[in-house]
Amino acid sequence: MSPLKNDTFLRALRREPTDYTPIWLMRQAGRYLPEYNATRARAGSFLNLCKNHELACEVTLQPLDRYPLDAAILFSDILTVPDAMGLGLYFAEGEGPKFERPVRDEAAVAALASPDPADSLGYVMKAVSTIRGALGGRVPLIGFSGSPWTLACYMVEGGGSDDFRQVKSMLYRRPDLMKRILEVNAQAVADYLNAQVEAGAQALMIFDSWGGALADGAFQKFSLGPIRQVIDRLQRERDEPEVDASGRVVGTRRVQVPVIVFTKGGGLWLEEIAATGCDGVGVDWTVNLGQARARVGARCAIQGNLDPMVLMAAPDQIRGEALKALESFGVPQAGIGHVFNLGHGISQFTPPESVTALVEAVHAYSREQRRRGASASSL
Amino acid sequence: MSPLKNDTFLRALRREPTDYTPIWLMRQAGRYLPEYNATRARAGSFLNLCKNHELACEVTLQPLDRYPLDAAILFSDILTVPDAMGLGLYFAEGEGPKFERPVRDEAAVAALASPDPADSLGYVMKAVSTIRGALGGRVPLIGFSGSPWTLACYMVEGGGSDDFRQVKSMLYRRPDLMKRILEVNAQAVADYLNAQVEAGAQALMIFDSWGGALADGAFQKFSLGPIRQVIDRLQRERDEPEVDASGRVVGTRRVQVPVIVFTKGGGLWLEEIAATGCDGVGVDWTVNLGQARARVGARCAIQGNLDPMVLMAAPDQIRGEALKALESFGVPQAGIGHVFNLGHGISQFTPPESVTALVEAVHAYSREQRRRGASASSL
Repeated sequence: MSPLKNDTFLRALRREPTDYTPIWLMRQAGRYLPEYNATRARAGSFLNLCKNHELACEVTLQPLDRYPLDAAILFSDILTVPDAMGLGLYFAEGEGPKFERPVRDEAAVAALASPDPADSLGYVMKAVSTIRGALGGRVPLIGFSGSPWTLACYMVEGGGSDDFRQVKSMLYRRPDLMKRILEVNAQAVADYLNAQVEAGAQALMIFDSWGGALADGAFQKFSLGPIRQVIDRLQRERDEPEVDASGRVVGTRRVQVPVIVFTKGGGLWLEEIAATGCDGVGVDWTVNLGQARARVGARCAIQGNLDPMVLMAAPDQIRGEALKALESFGVPQAGIGHVFNLGHGISQFTPPESVTALVEAVHAYSREQRRRGASASSL
Repeated sequence: MSPLKNDTFLRALRREPTDYTPIWLMRQAGRYLPEYNATRARAGSFLNLCKNHELACEVTLQPLDRYPLDAAILFSDILTVPDAMGLGLYFAEGEGPKFERPVRDEAAVAALASPDPADSLGYVMKAVSTIRGALGGRVPLIGFSGSPWTLACYMVEGGGSDDFRQVKSMLYRRPDLMKRILEVNAQAVADYLNAQVEAGAQALMIFDSWGGALADGAFQKFSLGPIRQVIDRLQRERDEPEVDASGRVVGTRRVQVPVIVFTKGGGLWLEEIAATGCDGVGVDWTVNLGQARARVGARCAIQGNLDPMVLMAAPDQIRGEALKALESFGVPQAGIGHVFNLGHGISQFTPPESVTALVEAVHAYSREQRRRGASASSL
């Protein structure tokens, strides 16, 4: 594996000084890119695309070939883990992910077991190592998983939901069953993420997409608690090539693997999320970046948080919103880190040139912001 | 109109002492009640039910005949106002509300005008006065409207949405058009609510159902600003019958008409919502009631916030969750008010006996809580 040429993203997560604010976009390899749609068409289906390591690698790199993004993220689905548990993941046309065998009763809960990632999730690890090779050290590769609670939502509902009636009914009526599902999921997610690190992932992200659907109190118990269990069990260091001044590999060294937790709709709980032991806290667009920095910035880097719909506006308007976000966060001083991102996945309807405007603006303004900050502090 | 026999709800909103914590439930007249479904079947459709003042009155009173709730809420739809603007409201089977003529371009925006509520919304006012008569002073009647932004979402999207792409695209690309829509809506909502007060509504609620979809910054500008405009224009007092000790009507007196603002997903902005001039702030279940009280309790009453899915649990579990919510809020002391409610509308799948357990528990525990509080403070 090649040494890293651009470590801005990792430095920001470690809250070390950076020359500019790094940026990547959730779902950056996706349907807004024509080249993605072409590869997906060749794969035949979304699941085939996830399960074919060469095609998964191809789409992972597509946005990096278009835009100077500061991180790559493994192309995969958050439901690979429950699929590996044997629940039968499938995609109904126009309806999103579904499971053939949702987990609804005592017997189904008892039968759940954490899968061996080397076995049924081997295709993901193959994708990770293929992508690492293809990246050639351009930017770090992020591995990821759904949070134990978010996986449980899909497992119990059997698909998406707008009221989470099945999973919350179980939570309130049979908390014992819910706890057992979350214990299995916490182990499965930890094993899955550790296997990704082993295969080459240089940072990890836990998507707690449905944590924000929970009530205060239930969130801490049923979403955050299991996330903490996952983080406690993670391999937080890995060996990376050590290079000399000429770029020649002369050995290996231990490096940290930072972990980001993103609870969509979790703005009220940032302090508690930051206390899970993660390195970065993802925030959605309802959060004021300056306030997030004041609340948890000394403890964790902040990742986020432009409304993806800003990318529907004209380039000048996008630049204006990017500037506002950077100004709201303020200049990252020593011990403070910001990774620019959207507050949620990019929309399939985004014009690709909008991303060009955004990435350029974030890089240019954040360099300018640091220059101004430096000249102000040298007065 | 009869004098009020139970003013606990209004007292709590005025942050005056109450013997117990009043409770009502968003969407309390709804599909979880067999008698509601029977009336709706007679009406033929949901819209017919809204537009027939006798049937609207009948369903408004149904939950009060079953449960000792402390307020009634006008049975209507939040989209009556844009319907009166001529957008052509209809309900597609299983798809929720839709508009035949969504507001998507400059010409459609320019053509918008605030309707005269006495004219095209007369059926709502007729329902309000019919319900007031039928209530006979049992409990106060709440009138309501969607917020200007929430109405704009439906008007521009032409129906429900999960990404608000159309309305947010307009907001970010053409803020001038969005501002014009919101100005019309603010005037329309103020006129509509004032007409409801005139017809007999004793409290008002503004449902900002989609405020939480906005980014920080955009929320203040596009949702909260127009809500403040509405509140500034509201008739906040009305004449109510004055009775003597024997209950005989001896004249009239001016009474306050409290206003509640509920932004679903607005927990990060409670201070700003409380500063709109409202009397009560509705909170969803992601908010910690004790923290909400500490943040805005001295300025506004708090309304909320049980997860509606708690009602899927067994009666003992429901009582436990009600107790936890009351304990989290703490005893309402002088200058503090709490109105118990769900954090969102009740689910159509709720067993009716769950509501019995909840209402009884809230009334009994909150009386007990006040007794304990009183004995503790008399030590």
